Amino acid sequence: MNLHTPHLLFLGDVKNPLDAKTARGMVDWRPDHCVGQLRLPGCEVDLGLPDLTPAAAYALGARSLVVGVAPLGGQLAPEWLASMQGALREGLSLVSGLHQRLVDIPALASEAMARNLALIDVRVPPGEIAIATGETRTGKRLLTVGTDCCVGKKYTALALARALTDEGMKATFRATGQTGIMISGQGIPMDAVISDFLSGAAEQLSPNADHDHWDIIEGQGSLFHPAYAAVTLGLLHGSQPDALVLCHDASRTTIDEYEAFPIPDIKACVRRYEEAAQLTNAAARVVGISLITSASSDAEALVTCEALSQSTGLLCFDPLRHAMTPLISSLLS
Amino acid sequence: MNLHTPHLLFLGDVKNPLDAKTARGMVDWRPDHCVGQLRLPGCEVDLGLPDLTPAAAYALGARSLVVGVAPLGGQLAPEWLASMQGALREGLSLVSGLHQRLVDIPALASEAMARNLALIDVRVPPGEIAIATGETRTGKRLLTVGTDCCVGKKYTALALARALTDEGMKATFRATGQTGIMISGQGIPMDAVISDFLSGAAEQLSPNADHDHWDIIEGQGSLFHPAYAAVTLGLLHGSQPDALVLCHDASRTTIDEYEAFPIPDIKACVRRYEEAAQLTNAAARVVGISLITSASSDAEALVTCEALSQSTGLLCFDPLRHAMTPLISSLLS
Repeated sequence: MNLHTPHLLFLGDVKNPLDAKTARGMVDWRPDHCVGQLRLPGCEVDLGLPDLTPAAAYALGARSLVVGVAPLGGQLAPEWLASMQGALREGLSLVSGLHQRLVDIPALASEAMARNLALIDVRVPPGEIAIATGETRTGKRLLTVGTDCCVGKKYTALALARALTDEGMKATFRATGQTGIMISGQGIPMDAVISDFLSGAAEQLSPNADHDHWDIIEGQGSLFHPAYAAVTLGLLHGSQPDALVLCHDASRTTIDEYEAFPIPDIKACVRRYEEAAQLTNAAARVVGISLITSASSDAEALVTCEALSQSTGLLCFDPLRHAMTPLISSLLS
Repeated sequence: MNLHTPHLLFLGDVKNPLDAKTARGMVDWRPDHCVGQLRLPGCEVDLGLPDLTPAAAYALGARSLVVGVAPLGGQLAPEWLASMQGALREGLSLVSGLHQRLVDIPALASEAMARNLALIDVRVPPGEIAIATGETRTGKRLLTVGTDCCVGKKYTALALARALTDEGMKATFRATGQTGIMISGQGIPMDAVISDFLSGAAEQLSPNADHDHWDIIEGQGSLFHPAYAAVTLGLLHGSQPDALVLCHDASRTTIDEYEAFPIPDIKACVRRYEEAAQLTNAAARVVGISLITSASSDAEALVTCEALSQSTGLLCFDPLRHAMTPLISSLLS
């Protein structure tokens, strides 16, 4: 997928850093692709990149503006349209992972066509997806799952895939959401797949492979989320994971933006995920817990991980702070 | 929704009666809309309707040909195209609930336009669906769920809605699949909804209602199906049912067409559905079991129901054989 790198990252006027997770993911995992940020008045998120106009970004080499924000529902805010048009006028193509497609917005489509620039919608599933067969595939698979959205499923998968590759093992990161696709340049946006074909899409995403190859699959949503659990379950069933890593934000007790929904006890989460996964892979097991501990000191984070490890009997780590070595050893054994 | 009634029902060359469930549903629940059947050589299903050519059906009043078969994957078989074109030439509009849309088949689109006939695709979700909020709605809801596909979820819901209405209660059948939509003339085809919006679509399907009104919602798929469980879960979460009726075919031990997947013990199914439903409605309970007992005599069916009722402590009945009265009493209490 040609994403017209490097990018200027558009943040709109977002307040909540979680809404800017696409831009944050690009900065963290593809810093070489990020020239600067474009923020509107009222924006409270800062990626630590230079604030640039489209013209200045173009002069520094940028060739596209990436919609780096992911609002609930996936619609482009009308007040962002002028920035998109302005970027096109300065010679930048547009890249978006919103549900609402750039090519379906007439003002952008005509402007891009007139200037021979690209509108790149990455949240478009493949045209041909088969219904899931449930048949076992060769190779090994690990899926990251979560107690909620935005709890490190993508980060954990990326970090683990990188660590496995660094160790000389065969591993492939499999992107399932817009940010992961922008980072890795490929994947299937699971939440944009017609629901009947969800598990089939997941089967297609991690095909037969060598017996010692690991697909490290980015999870989506959460079984405990009132809006998105279906996406989670379809991806889980089609992935047929041998191993699951449960991701959790240690500072969160309820579902983000759904405060009436408590996050269950971690041990209950482990049980529910294993029970659901075992429909298509009887050997599926949670092999570790990936914790976001950014609200704690290093020492506190170690204590938190140690306590959770004691109570669950599982490896527990923060992928931003701790080495992946114990998890990799556990996968190999 | 104008479905251009009455219909000629197209069965193609299907062998498995389960693949003709759309046509069977029309005959059972809208016999007044069914003029005859159109079968190709090799077809082994018989609806008990007269075999008619499109011309003969038109002469008897038919105004549309309904694709009455639902093959796995939802594609129109190429060898059926000639029959569709032939029907258009005789003045019949076309009605289909397949994933593949009639309007996307150029040969049909041009023929229909030339003759000013309609191509009606019922498996098209509404254009605007919001992400689920998880917020509680007024009124009461019952959802039928299943141990598998094709186990009576639609029949049970239709029969219960009719029985409630006959008793003078406020009740509405809510269709979630192509056949239910053809029968009732409205609904949302859940399996055609983009997966991120599944639970939101289910919330939209059964909106706020009077406190003594029952939405009787047609279930989809099964939590134990390797291809379709995501659709089941999204519908379950968005429906926020107060009551569930678990549907099962007493003669089946494995998932239809997925023989490697056993159907779990009924008590385990009850537990799993209640656990999943309680995410969005803590009071959700399975209130009865609807059994297909067509392979048994009347006496055997009673014994089967009685035994299952004993072992589960739940009402157990075959909606084609037994009265709904006990279930209705249980809903009212």
